[in-house]
Amino acid sequence: MLSRLFAPKVKVSAHCDLPCGVYDPAQARVEAESVKAIQEKYQANDDPHYRARATYIKEQRAELAKHHISVLWSDYFKAPHFEKYPQLHQLVNDALKAASAAKASTDPATGQKLLDYIAEIDKIFWETKKA
Amino acid sequence: MLSRLFAPKVKVSAHCDLPCGVYDPAQARVEAESVKAIQEKYQANDDPHYRARATYIKEQRAELAKHHISVLWSDYFKAPHFEKYPQLHQLVNDALKAASAAKASTDPATGQKLLDYIAEIDKIFWETKKA
Amino acid sequence: MLSRLFAPKVKVSAHCDLPCGVYDPAQARVEAESVKAIQEKYQANDDPHYRARATYIKEQRAELAKHHISVLWSDYFKAPHFEKYPQLHQLVNDALKAASAAKASTDPATGQKLLDYIAEIDKIFWETKKA
Amino acid sequence: MLSRLFAPKVKVSAHCDLPCGVYDPAQARVEAESVKAIQEKYQANDDPHYRARATYIKEQRAELAKHHISVLWSDYFKAPHFEKYPQLHQLVNDALKAASAAKASTDPATGQKLLDYIAEIDKIFWETKKA
Amino acid sequence: MLSRLFAPKVKVSAHCDLPCGVYDPAQARVEAESVKAIQEKYQANDDPHYRARATYIKEQRAELAKHHISVLWSDYFKAPHFEKYPQLHQLVNDALKAASAAKASTDPATGQKLLDYIAEIDKIFWETKKA
Amino acid sequence: MLSRLFAPKVKVSAHCDLPCGVYDPAQARVEAESVKAIQEKYQANDDPHYRARATYIKEQRAELAKHHISVLWSDYFKAPHFEKYPQLHQLVNDALKAASAAKASTDPATGQKLLDYIAEIDKIFWETKKA
Repeated sequence: MLSRLFAPKVKVSAHCDLPCGVYDPAQARVEAESVKAIQEKYQANDDPHYRARATYIKEQRAELAKHHISVLWSDYFKAPHFEKYPQLHQLVNDALKAASAAKASTDPATGQKLLDYIAEIDKIFWETKKA
Repeated sequence: MLSRLFAPKVKVSAHCDLPCGVYDPAQARVEAESVKAIQEKYQANDDPHYRARATYIKEQRAELAKHHISVLWSDYFKAPHFEKYPQLHQLVNDALKAASAAKASTDPATGQKLLDYIAEIDKIFWETKKA
Repeated sequence: MLSRLFAPKVKVSAHCDLPCGVYDPAQARVEAESVKAIQEKYQANDDPHYRARATYIKEQRAELAKHHISVLWSDYFKAPHFEKYPQLHQLVNDALKAASAAKASTDPATGQKLLDYIAEIDKIFWETKKA
Repeated sequence: MLSRLFAPKVKVSAHCDLPCGVYDPAQARVEAESVKAIQEKYQANDDPHYRARATYIKEQRAELAKHHISVLWSDYFKAPHFEKYPQLHQLVNDALKAASAAKASTDPATGQKLLDYIAEIDKIFWETKKA
Repeated sequence: MLSRLFAPKVKVSAHCDLPCGVYDPAQARVEAESVKAIQEKYQANDDPHYRARATYIKEQRAELAKHHISVLWSDYFKAPHFEKYPQLHQLVNDALKAASAAKASTDPATGQKLLDYIAEIDKIFWETKKA
Repeated sequence: MLSRLFAPKVKVSAHCDLPCGVYDPAQARVEAESVKAIQEKYQANDDPHYRARATYIKEQRAELAKHHISVLWSDYFKAPHFEKYPQLHQLVNDALKAASAAKASTDPATGQKLLDYIAEIDKIFWETKKA
């Protein structure tokens, strides 16, 4: 999975609504990696101040992940993609709900689940770029 | 340069101030790619409404690029890095000033210059990760 | 007037990801009303400074509309809703694309189209609240 | 339900500083409803992570309520309104202080008090719209 | 210079809603100075891209000025102040409307008017601090 | 008091990237004062809800301090300054790291250390303004 994500041909790109035409699931993934890392650090440190900080920052990171996922769905993916990948709507919705679940949890498994969904979206994204 | 940036070993990472330990110059680069793409689109479209939108969005993207560059310098790079790379302080400062210059310009060459500086920071970043 | 706004059945609600359980399509609609009003004012005033302001503010309002629509889709609507309203995924995606189109246009018809999509989502929303 | 929401007299409105002319106390009220709902959920759940999340989100929601109240006072209400409703300045100030108090408390009564103030402002608002 | 800035009586202060007890009208003034400076630069440069940037940035700075003024009124000033300075409510409201007017104008006189109102609030603020 | 605040030599200034030419280290200092005040209040109050609020707000204030410090370094200080003050790069970097440390701590000594670094930057800033 990792090798696919970082393969040489990866035309990094991303996200503004001009649109500038630059899109990249890496933005969502980086935030989700952060969410999972925070959950792991939370488990390893029971200081209340540290945990309050971790909770707040995780909230922000997961929100950014949601934003980046939403942008891909609303701005990059279009009718032909939804036709070719009929599961895409539900997959994106599941990914967003997984981000909300990771916000509500300190279990790194929830961060990983979010990462797994993003990897699925990423796979479709790069297939459409090659098409 | 591109192949290095997207080589398989690239451990994507980034940025929160917990710190979560996740850092990645790709975040700055994606925003800078957007800045340059907006400048190109601006040149190709003389509609005033389009250009006002492009100007506003470019402002935001360049500001995000500045933020991501600053975070690398303040949060990721530490004393041993500055000792090994004595040019790093000035390089980062030049990169930030290049981002301000790209805000003030519609010439894609300014966006490219920002990308070049980010590529230099990126090179050092990955060398330190390997060290 | 007050009784209308605070009547028991209105159950105003909206949007945070605790979740607090408060959701309301009115949030998206208010922003979309603003988008359309700005487009009308843009048409009626050809001062460049006014138009630059209008463009910037419209960008923000349409972005907020997108955010509120996305929140309904990712946080409020769940599996049973998607089963009962199989068109909901595409409807929400169309609404978000209409918001992007309104950003890119100064024609009030694009603002109205966004409002129409929000009205469709609103209709389904209140049906599910009654169910 | 739809007809209620989009009926001519509802003239939903709110808030940008173009100004677009769209104002609506519902924006403040929705956030205040969220504040109170979060306080209730906080009382019903003693998990530290949940409570840290609730605290952070309540902070944001109360801040948004303050913003929306301030906008009504600074942008919508004008000299003739202040003449007709001499208590309006103090009422708005009390409402803002109630929002700060709700931030500092986990007692739903403080959220309700904020809602009560917003209802008073709302009453005056709609009277001025009818005038 | 340093001694002036950090002298005991300067009691620099400002603004969070903990509250931390730190308040300072300088925050509003700095933003208003920026608004006026942008208006002057706008007048001196007729490049459309420069003017679009100036318009967008002026919007942000005036909004920050409004925010800082609102915070003083809602969080710092309390009942005894309003009793001693019965004009304070209206003065703050006028200041906020002056900020909106400066957003809508490229005339530095509007920026100066905002500064004048802030100076009046500042005068009262420091009188209350000495009391 | 007023005369002090608006005296010609104070030349309050700060921060936008037009650039408007207005810069002032007071912006960073006010936020850092707030950080330290929050840490003191945190120590004096062991209510978990209060402490969660304090933690969140301190995070925001320290982030703003970092932002204002970064802006001085990237936008105000230029080549001649770096030549005259060869320690400036490292000083700014130390100040930013002190802000991160204050985020991670509830000890007012960390807030004070941040204030000390800002005072050093402030001293250089005003020397350059006089030059």
